[in-house]
Amino acid sequence: MSSNQFKESKILIEDNSLDSLLDYFLTKNNLSKIFILTDENTKKYCLSILANFFYNKFDFTSIEIAGGEQNKTIESCIAIWNQLSHAGADKNSLLVNLGGGIITDIGGFVASTYLRGINFINIPTSLMGMADAAIGGKNGIDLNAIKNQIGSINFPDMIFIHSLFLKTLNDRHFKNGLVEVFKHGLIADKKLWLNLSSVEINRDSIGTILTKAIEIKNNIVTEDPYEKGIRKILNFGHTIGHALESCLLNSGEYQLLHGEAIVAGMIMETWLSEKYCGLKLDESSEITSKLFEIFGKKKLSLINFDNFISYLNYDKKNQHQQFNFSLLNAIGSCKWNIAVSLEDVKVVFNRYNATI
Amino acid sequence: MSSNQFKESKILIEDNSLDSLLDYFLTKNNLSKIFILTDENTKKYCLSILANFFYNKFDFTSIEIAGGEQNKTIESCIAIWNQLSHAGADKNSLLVNLGGGIITDIGGFVASTYLRGINFINIPTSLMGMADAAIGGKNGIDLNAIKNQIGSINFPDMIFIHSLFLKTLNDRHFKNGLVEVFKHGLIADKKLWLNLSSVEINRDSIGTILTKAIEIKNNIVTEDPYEKGIRKILNFGHTIGHALESCLLNSGEYQLLHGEAIVAGMIMETWLSEKYCGLKLDESSEITSKLFEIFGKKKLSLINFDNFISYLNYDKKNQHQQFNFSLLNAIGSCKWNIAVSLEDVKVVFNRYNATI
Repeated sequence: MSSNQFKESKILIEDNSLDSLLDYFLTKNNLSKIFILTDENTKKYCLSILANFFYNKFDFTSIEIAGGEQNKTIESCIAIWNQLSHAGADKNSLLVNLGGGIITDIGGFVASTYLRGINFINIPTSLMGMADAAIGGKNGIDLNAIKNQIGSINFPDMIFIHSLFLKTLNDRHFKNGLVEVFKHGLIADKKLWLNLSSVEINRDSIGTILTKAIEIKNNIVTEDPYEKGIRKILNFGHTIGHALESCLLNSGEYQLLHGEAIVAGMIMETWLSEKYCGLKLDESSEITSKLFEIFGKKKLSLINFDNFISYLNYDKKNQHQQFNFSLLNAIGSCKWNIAVSLEDVKVVFNRYNATI
Repeated sequence: MSSNQFKESKILIEDNSLDSLLDYFLTKNNLSKIFILTDENTKKYCLSILANFFYNKFDFTSIEIAGGEQNKTIESCIAIWNQLSHAGADKNSLLVNLGGGIITDIGGFVASTYLRGINFINIPTSLMGMADAAIGGKNGIDLNAIKNQIGSINFPDMIFIHSLFLKTLNDRHFKNGLVEVFKHGLIADKKLWLNLSSVEINRDSIGTILTKAIEIKNNIVTEDPYEKGIRKILNFGHTIGHALESCLLNSGEYQLLHGEAIVAGMIMETWLSEKYCGLKLDESSEITSKLFEIFGKKKLSLINFDNFISYLNYDKKNQHQQFNFSLLNAIGSCKWNIAVSLEDVKVVFNRYNATI
């Protein structure tokens, strides 16, 4: 039952029904116990949907942890490991991660390491989770506010995407996930980018676009599950974005959601793409104008540049003390392992802050 | 560089020289930093050998943790993760685990999860490590004294076996490792068992036997790296042995070394093999007499049976609340997934304690 070897995750996408989820559980006749991991929000807004579904069919035990990036820590893992252990979870138990990216990140790591690995499935409840975090097998926790320093790559048995959960999101969280959908277009699919630029995206119109974004991500991670090469393009915007997130997480002043930090990173890394990756100026302007228009400018004025750079030093793509970026050479196409100088990071950081 | 997919570990065995270790490092031209993990003992007795070897060739940073099973905890992992992070370890860093089974268990887990996996090599300094723990990719830590509840299966890039380190062991620790060598004969190689029974094994005579024991273990784990089937035979003696260890670890009264608990487990499980696996009485007597003769009887009188059983409930091979054992059907042959009743566990537990 250990699942540390690569296997492609089954992805089920449903609009109105839970039938395919039922089919999945009916084929799993070797399951001993089911555990559902939630945070306080998904316990309140999403668990009842699953509880009704399971009622009279399958027993489950729910485990709740405190949500938010500040709780993506080893302490949360220890709390879950202990609850699994006390409840008698064995190698045939299943962990259902019901939540946004933080829940699927923590739950994936806990399941991958409990008894050296039990099966798990992801049921993302946020657009961020559906379009990105729940897919691709990356899991992990932060160490001293440094993003995803501890974790593994281990694919869930199944990912269940149910648009019903999108209705539980407020506008800020919907936009948070939309950032990754735009990123998927920019790095791999110009048509998706053009689609996104031409229509207003909301909870009702996102269906086909979300399916496309999931397909893009899944194709990339299936081609390169352990990030030896092309998978690195998914990090576009994340090199700078993660460092911004860590800075703010440690400052205690205010926080950006993951997507809010990433979109600022995408804008700065688009500018870097002009110099380092041959991105044409008209495409660069088209990208940054659109991103500013849809997502607005984030307040980064409280971030000190030297502090920001200290977090950039922890980026997992760094090699031999060199910053390695994934940058665009055109809309819909991205290169990786591009060394960028500290001076140029400072230029785009200042340019972002100077933009009105 | 993530190494969560199975790859067979290179195993280098040397008697007097470090040449093959040098060859290994010379081929690794993409290494950024080398970290050597030790406990207080291997720092004192073994690190200087490596330090002399590295001198003027490679820089390294040493990380020390407190040794002993009571420190095989998540807290030790957090301490090492933090030291790696503060020292700027990146994805091209290498962790060298220099120590016995506890160091290679902890170090393997730390390396498998730091930045979602960096490369590591094991240099076992104990016979237990060389014959068993350092080989096979299983790593992990204890949770609330329950053995190896958290961990993963992830193979080291290389394992370096150097008999010089055996000279640092006292008799108790030498015998501790010898238990697993006997186990490898019992489960898979009658000729090895007969060899072991006919000659006195000491640090000078162990060479060929150790090489054979390593070959047996490596063949099994290569055939079934993720323990779907035959790898379970390596657990012979460990179902009961681990529960004994956990009991004593939590009691604080006295401790058995891993091998000391396992040999008691092997004797009890040999008796279970008669009833559940068709092991002939004469072979059973041959096994238990030899094990008592070489390893002596361990004092288990302080262990309460109900307390012992509560730990057996946590065995990773359990399925659907059933105890699954790996048992011998003959000397040199072992079966797995054999359900054993609680009553019969009690019978052999009492029989062991009643043996003079």
